[in-house]
Amino acid sequence: MTRTVVASATREIIIGFDQPFCVIGERINPTGRKKLAAEMVEGNFDTVRKDALEQVAAGATMLDVNAGVTAVDPNATEPALLVQTLQIVQELVDVPLSIDSSVSAAIEAALKVAKGRPLVNSVTGEMEKLEAILPLCKKYDVPVVAISNDETGISEDPDVRFAVAKKIVEHAADYGIKPEDIVVDPLVMPIGAMGTAGKQVFALLRRLREELKVNTTCGLSNISFGLPHRHGINAGFIPMVIGAGMTSAIMNPCRPQEMEAVRAANVLNGTDPDCMNWIRTYKDYQPNAAGAPASVSAAPAGRAGGRRGGREARLSRG
Amino acid sequence: MTRTVVASATREIIIGFDQPFCVIGERINPTGRKKLAAEMVEGNFDTVRKDALEQVAAGATMLDVNAGVTAVDPNATEPALLVQTLQIVQELVDVPLSIDSSVSAAIEAALKVAKGRPLVNSVTGEMEKLEAILPLCKKYDVPVVAISNDETGISEDPDVRFAVAKKIVEHAADYGIKPEDIVVDPLVMPIGAMGTAGKQVFALLRRLREELKVNTTCGLSNISFGLPHRHGINAGFIPMVIGAGMTSAIMNPCRPQEMEAVRAANVLNGTDPDCMNWIRTYKDYQPNAAGAPASVSAAPAGRAGGRRGGREARLSRG
Repeated sequence: MTRTVVASATREIIIGFDQPFCVIGERINPTGRKKLAAEMVEGNFDTVRKDALEQVAAGATMLDVNAGVTAVDPNATEPALLVQTLQIVQELVDVPLSIDSSVSAAIEAALKVAKGRPLVNSVTGEMEKLEAILPLCKKYDVPVVAISNDETGISEDPDVRFAVAKKIVEHAADYGIKPEDIVVDPLVMPIGAMGTAGKQVFALLRRLREELKVNTTCGLSNISFGLPHRHGINAGFIPMVIGAGMTSAIMNPCRPQEMEAVRAANVLNGTDPDCMNWIRTYKDYQPNAAGAPASVSAAPAGRAGGRRGGREARLSRG
Repeated sequence: MTRTVVASATREIIIGFDQPFCVIGERINPTGRKKLAAEMVEGNFDTVRKDALEQVAAGATMLDVNAGVTAVDPNATEPALLVQTLQIVQELVDVPLSIDSSVSAAIEAALKVAKGRPLVNSVTGEMEKLEAILPLCKKYDVPVVAISNDETGISEDPDVRFAVAKKIVEHAADYGIKPEDIVVDPLVMPIGAMGTAGKQVFALLRRLREELKVNTTCGLSNISFGLPHRHGINAGFIPMVIGAGMTSAIMNPCRPQEMEAVRAANVLNGTDPDCMNWIRTYKDYQPNAAGAPASVSAAPAGRAGGRRGGREARLSRG
């Protein structure tokens, strides 16, 4: 059984096929958030702290930490800023962290100060990346997200993306890194632009699980890019990828509809024993709360589902 | 490719792996609805009419019609009442119907007056049932729901349920009925009572699709029986069964959360070309409408998903 172990100073989490889906909170990331980027450059980490606490409160299993505030000479600024951000977050919350940077020096600087066993996010199939990141993963004994693109870019052909993932796993083995420490991102395309994007990724997830026996992750909200009511598409996608074998995702845990889909899929996938997490979260659920669990409710829990359908009656008759 | 054709007088629907999920509206069923049963006995079909119109308006692909108003001597009352109910419904709406009864004489009486190509609901693996229902299906050239239990009851062992389904398909072949006219119900157990119920049914659905090559259905809401916030479990279950190959379900189409899950899964499964149905339904969606598409909205559709996460930005950088 594939088990990717990640840890903070005080808490260990296992990513695996028999584990609850691992929600990696995506919000501590200034990419595309100009205000946050400006704050971080000024040394103001109020939003970072708020995002850390809110995501953990919302149910994040891990937090991604990215300090990519500029596209201009990130090598100069990102290592120190990523270290500072990481240290603030790991002092504040006790979930394991994902060190997210495209700058290898920033990843190494963060690994030096990170407590526990963080996840490195990420390596690709590009030779330069492999040779920069894999030795760090070996040296610090940490798992890594492997994104299935290489020098030729992101292929639209899922077979090519599988081959790139396989290449990364093989390269990692050359460095003495086991497949269980590679978390493959098969790359999710927007379904609005490519109608086969869903079926592609479901098929890829099965192959990654059955042939490479690796854990998997993705940037979840890509799937709904450009469509109206994106939360509805995301919330439908989550149970489908979990059913296909995906074991983690980089996503926004502060979205009730998406987190509800994660919790339901855990129940249905058999990783929420006795439905305890579901019952605890939704026992006082009020239908009009727009997806958010209500803290107080007058509705008895057993009535939340309303009238039962005919087939159910038939089962009890049978 | 397995194609189960059903039809009303004016409209043909195909149930199949490459088709949008077929939602069979469950509401016209007095089982467990004492008020409806009393009305129907009195010859009052106002609720039947209302349920028919509401379900079609909510997006039902087909409607199930059941007239089982009593457990006491149903043979005496059900044939005439089912005929009457069916005729009222088929005059009112143009979707194909499912003739739902445990009384064989009622099924035959309804088949005599049904327009188009209805679905018979249902046969089981019980010899007496097979010998009563399959000749009717052959005579009237109609497809049938095959429930995978037999004289020994409902097995908790999915291999036994698969074997019962296989037996029904083989018996049907003896009568000259093709597998494409058998829609197997693998039987969904409540996940609150049996933690493996989800994984069982996903595995069964794959076997039914790959080995027997049949379409499938289920009484969907059974899965969440006894749990709080049943709509959330149902809405997570729908994408998972669709991903596993289920092609229809007997369910309540008047539940916005469940129907949203069906529409999202159709998009992701590639059966909503260019996401047109999704876009048409949710282009003016307002997040605070508690799952229901709003008829009027001031929010531009493109903003419904809110801020985009980091991985998306990375994809566009890559």
